[in-house]
Amino acid sequence: MFEFELLATDGQARAGLFHTPHGELQTPVFAPVGTQATVKALTPDQLQALDASLILANTYHLFLRPGDETVARMGGLHAFMGWPGPLLTDSGGFQVFSLAERRQIDPDGVTFRSHLDGSEQRFTPESTISMQENLGADIIMALDECAEPYDRSYSELAMMRTHAWAERCLAAKKREDQALFGIVQGGVFADLRQQSATFIASLDLPGIAIGGLSVGETKEEMLAMLEILDPLLPQDRPRYLMGVGSPEDIVTGVLRGVDIFDCVLPTRMARNHTALTRRGRINLRNAPYVEDPLPIDPDCDCYTCRSFSRAYLRHLSTTKEMLAATLLSIHNLRVLIALTQDLRLSILEGRAQSFAEDFLVAFRKHRPTEAET
Amino acid sequence: MFEFELLATDGQARAGLFHTPHGELQTPVFAPVGTQATVKALTPDQLQALDASLILANTYHLFLRPGDETVARMGGLHAFMGWPGPLLTDSGGFQVFSLAERRQIDPDGVTFRSHLDGSEQRFTPESTISMQENLGADIIMALDECAEPYDRSYSELAMMRTHAWAERCLAAKKREDQALFGIVQGGVFADLRQQSATFIASLDLPGIAIGGLSVGETKEEMLAMLEILDPLLPQDRPRYLMGVGSPEDIVTGVLRGVDIFDCVLPTRMARNHTALTRRGRINLRNAPYVEDPLPIDPDCDCYTCRSFSRAYLRHLSTTKEMLAATLLSIHNLRVLIALTQDLRLSILEGRAQSFAEDFLVAFRKHRPTEAET
Repeated sequence: MFEFELLATDGQARAGLFHTPHGELQTPVFAPVGTQATVKALTPDQLQALDASLILANTYHLFLRPGDETVARMGGLHAFMGWPGPLLTDSGGFQVFSLAERRQIDPDGVTFRSHLDGSEQRFTPESTISMQENLGADIIMALDECAEPYDRSYSELAMMRTHAWAERCLAAKKREDQALFGIVQGGVFADLRQQSATFIASLDLPGIAIGGLSVGETKEEMLAMLEILDPLLPQDRPRYLMGVGSPEDIVTGVLRGVDIFDCVLPTRMARNHTALTRRGRINLRNAPYVEDPLPIDPDCDCYTCRSFSRAYLRHLSTTKEMLAATLLSIHNLRVLIALTQDLRLSILEGRAQSFAEDFLVAFRKHRPTEAET
Repeated sequence: MFEFELLATDGQARAGLFHTPHGELQTPVFAPVGTQATVKALTPDQLQALDASLILANTYHLFLRPGDETVARMGGLHAFMGWPGPLLTDSGGFQVFSLAERRQIDPDGVTFRSHLDGSEQRFTPESTISMQENLGADIIMALDECAEPYDRSYSELAMMRTHAWAERCLAAKKREDQALFGIVQGGVFADLRQQSATFIASLDLPGIAIGGLSVGETKEEMLAMLEILDPLLPQDRPRYLMGVGSPEDIVTGVLRGVDIFDCVLPTRMARNHTALTRRGRINLRNAPYVEDPLPIDPDCDCYTCRSFSRAYLRHLSTTKEMLAATLLSIHNLRVLIALTQDLRLSILEGRAQSFAEDFLVAFRKHRPTEAET
């Protein structure tokens, strides 16, 4: 279980197969985010129809509601949310650290107040593993601490705690049917990233995540960190770039050896009336679409593009109909999933560089001319 | 076109086939309401999967946004909303009369202020036909006036206007591929209802609607009016009871000769966390469902009941996830559509009375013990 087959490389780009108890992941792969055990506005059937394979859920939210123990008694997250494929849960740490004044970190864990009712709660490495074992996802994450990316001393401290917590998570883990991924931290500091990659790679873990990027640093800094990490990370384990990304970030990330991505961007933009395309974004509330008979993207194979005009989607957005979020989420997720599928094929066929260049030229050329959210 | 085949009767209950340009309706039939050219929170695919055949859209809303002329330029309502089956539009009158102080009725039509921007607008019999010809539904409705059910003099005046407007709508109608239905009014007054049924039946119209019921009168009064109307309405044309109903109203309506129903109840209740069943309603926010592994109704064949527990639906409702509205709408609509399908079969097999009795006993027995919205 949890074998990673590296099928092909093209430069640093990788095409692989990651085996999990609920099916294999064809990498590179983009994971839609289902924070509260639902990818917002979509049924599992709709997710399968757009070729989603890995879904992410958030431990912090499910711990608060309905409770990880309730999910366990309901048969685990797969049964609870009706998702038959691979699932990934985060540790909950990132959400807790985002609570700002409402949390306090110490060497043993983090104490915080619930954003729902203000009740005091505590996460430790051991408790986050226990919660994730209750949820039962195929891939689970070690508790980590994500520092401000430019604060060197905090980045170093957070990295050290992240390493200690990764060891404790590994020791606490009991279930054999879950893959625990460790997380590389270190901000934008090359030596810290190197130190962190070396340490996390030394642990007996079937996958490695890269945390603390896309949290405020520039795109150039993110790419520089990925360049540094690539030779230090083992080839035989999947690499997961947490919380990334946009179409552009996925292409540039794959070129630097990343296998797994997740991001709320496509579904959040959908609820904000914005459609992703390979030629930039379009805001469907804009007046030019009022009688536009074309689909969002005539080249897209999603249900939304096969069935509906921009004029109809604009009408649904303007009238605040829930179906707008559903149809735009279907499209936006399909764009990112189709993009990872095309990237995978280009790697297998040894033309990843030219595919990426063509994509980035088209994407960057059109973006400034299109309406942004 | 618009032939109505009466396949079987059982007492006053009728099973038929109504032929429209976008397919046949197997009656009795329940039509989900898609006010703004969308059944809220559902895709056309999901509607087809739950066996919806006729969808209703509201002319008033579509006149305001995106405009009936825009819909016409986008290919008509079927193409615009991606619904391949039969569609019905109302005249818009009911919504306008509901505007209360914001409208003024005269013998020639009604002047009103838009609920969106306060702009002054006017509907006449001719303009409501023109708008409905732009929208292009298979079944369109004459402009009628719905009075307070207990006000005799107003009911008589509204009925007279309704009759005059029905004649004007018929004269104004140009498209051959749309069936215009006239509307019987008359409040709760037997003689007015008789007079109205006789007049509307005398017009050359392929179907007859019964308006002004389920607007404040008691259930007994509604059923009494249906009893009076049955012998006066022609057997060879479908009968549409507007804005009704609940499971109970559908069963009692079918027993009194009604063929077509529509109601916002199932989808509105779904957005209010309430599931319909043949044994009453359940509010999924209630605490007992927090770890309930059963589907809403183990006997229901809908996607929601085949895939999800009450515990999951409660979680989605509690966390205000959009998917709750989608999944409960699928279930609630399927309940009413399956009910009309079962009623149809019972009529064809000559056991409508016993089916209805068994249904009503079970429904009324359980209802008081279940949580209401």
